[in-house]
Amino acid sequence: MTRTSDIDVLISEVGPRDGLQSVSATMTTENKLRWIAALADAGVREIEVGSFVPARSLPQLADTAQVVVQAQEIADLTVIGLAPNARGVADAIVAGVHTVSMPVSASESHNLRNLGRTCAESVEQVKRARELVDAAGAAGPRLDVGVSTAFGCTIEGKVSEDRVIDLAVQLADAGAHSVGLSDTTGYANPASVRRLFARLSAELGDRAGAAHLHNTRGQGLANVVAALDAGVRTFDSSQAGLGGCPWAPGATGNIVTEDLVFLLEAMGLRTGIDVDALNEGRKILREALPGEPLYGSVPDAGLPLGFEYAGAHA
Amino acid sequence: MTRTSDIDVLISEVGPRDGLQSVSATMTTENKLRWIAALADAGVREIEVGSFVPARSLPQLADTAQVVVQAQEIADLTVIGLAPNARGVADAIVAGVHTVSMPVSASESHNLRNLGRTCAESVEQVKRARELVDAAGAAGPRLDVGVSTAFGCTIEGKVSEDRVIDLAVQLADAGAHSVGLSDTTGYANPASVRRLFARLSAELGDRAGAAHLHNTRGQGLANVVAALDAGVRTFDSSQAGLGGCPWAPGATGNIVTEDLVFLLEAMGLRTGIDVDALNEGRKILREALPGEPLYGSVPDAGLPLGFEYAGAHA
Repeated sequence: MTRTSDIDVLISEVGPRDGLQSVSATMTTENKLRWIAALADAGVREIEVGSFVPARSLPQLADTAQVVVQAQEIADLTVIGLAPNARGVADAIVAGVHTVSMPVSASESHNLRNLGRTCAESVEQVKRARELVDAAGAAGPRLDVGVSTAFGCTIEGKVSEDRVIDLAVQLADAGAHSVGLSDTTGYANPASVRRLFARLSAELGDRAGAAHLHNTRGQGLANVVAALDAGVRTFDSSQAGLGGCPWAPGATGNIVTEDLVFLLEAMGLRTGIDVDALNEGRKILREALPGEPLYGSVPDAGLPLGFEYAGAHA
Repeated sequence: MTRTSDIDVLISEVGPRDGLQSVSATMTTENKLRWIAALADAGVREIEVGSFVPARSLPQLADTAQVVVQAQEIADLTVIGLAPNARGVADAIVAGVHTVSMPVSASESHNLRNLGRTCAESVEQVKRARELVDAAGAAGPRLDVGVSTAFGCTIEGKVSEDRVIDLAVQLADAGAHSVGLSDTTGYANPASVRRLFARLSAELGDRAGAAHLHNTRGQGLANVVAALDAGVRTFDSSQAGLGGCPWAPGATGNIVTEDLVFLLEAMGLRTGIDVDALNEGRKILREALPGEPLYGSVPDAGLPLGFEYAGAHA
């Protein structure tokens, strides 16, 4: 769906969903839409704008349907909505998302705690979701699934790599258009990232999905390098590192979009995104979420003297 | 010199030199030695403990000779002293360092500003230094040279890769036992790191030296992954990310020793260092440098549940 012919790597911004669900303040719908527009203006092509869950569980995202409807007006932007179950997928289809994303944990304990279901029940939800998507016909969204706790779990500790790959195959068989892997807990390292994404690609081919990596232990971009080696070409990240269970100051949760764009462009991989233009989005966050820590090193340090974007001379 | 038979990667701690020269407070000699001892207790095998420069230019390091003499008492610790010129190397030899490190910039403007010499003059200094080292006979130290601004310069911008490699060869010819590359400015990216270290290794073989990487733009550990791919097995880092020209909060200068140890051990590469034991050193820093920001994500987030060090089951 997303226009990718002129980029090498797709950055899928998750801040408006993953970021805003983690902060205590609720951003107004108007500010969310200003932020999303600023991101799109900077060249971001795909944004997860909210979550289709009951308003009482995540009041910060209660306006998701409205945000989806308006974000769709932005040209060339793929609008993603998260849904934890088939019921949420139905709502996402009504709202008109381009892509619906569903999380399923590789850790049984985490899936129970996060989604209130066993993993097997979540696989069934994905099957139901695919039926709903198909029933929507040509207007139906894409269905992307992310395997949470793929690199370890804060409840269970180690998660077997065989288990992760086996679940990914089940989810693809259940009808996911792609299955990605998420380092929900910040447990991943470049060796495990390389191994698991290589196995995912070997099993699923072009249905191997995005890498959703966290920076909880400072390893986020190191893990991106390993995932690139394993052929991953779609990465989730969040402006200013909002969300993704941050710890103490300096330790972000999600990898920071600004720093990720710099990494990729410096390596010669086109993202379509302008780092300086991303500052507009930061300004909106600073206004709309006063006191909220905004992470990122490139926004502080600036681009190197003489920096050239990938393909600048192409 | 450093015992490396039971480790895969050597971490060379630069905090007591690179860190302390960047903070305004002067740590007492006693606290420096407590810190160095705590680092060694945690398993650190090599520490740059100071700089042989006139006391008026770096009063924080005026006690370097004394620190060297006392640090040498610690078993199995390689004590490094930095020297910007042959005069400093002579002093380092008298103090009794195991290794003397000399910086030479690939950028002519940076070398002039930092060392007050042209690059050609600095190469001559390395030649003189090697003569001094040889004259010291069996007691003479090792001479390691680091090429500063190898990945770009804040004055000149881009630095030609051919220029870097050419200078590295000149420095090896001048007598350096090893020549490493330093990302003084935080301009490096995984692609440039991989290219330059691969070329360095092709030119210098086992005289290709350490990677000194900065985290100014959040790319430090990503660059470590690339350097590992290019065969680098010695990395400089600094406890709590002290030093290395830090910018705003969250943006460290030097890569953080704690996070680097976690990265390597998680990847299955033995460092000999215990992450939890490094906390003793942080405690000393917190006491001795009140108000100084201490960086690092692993110290905040802790090790993953069920984490195993590399070789734990060997």
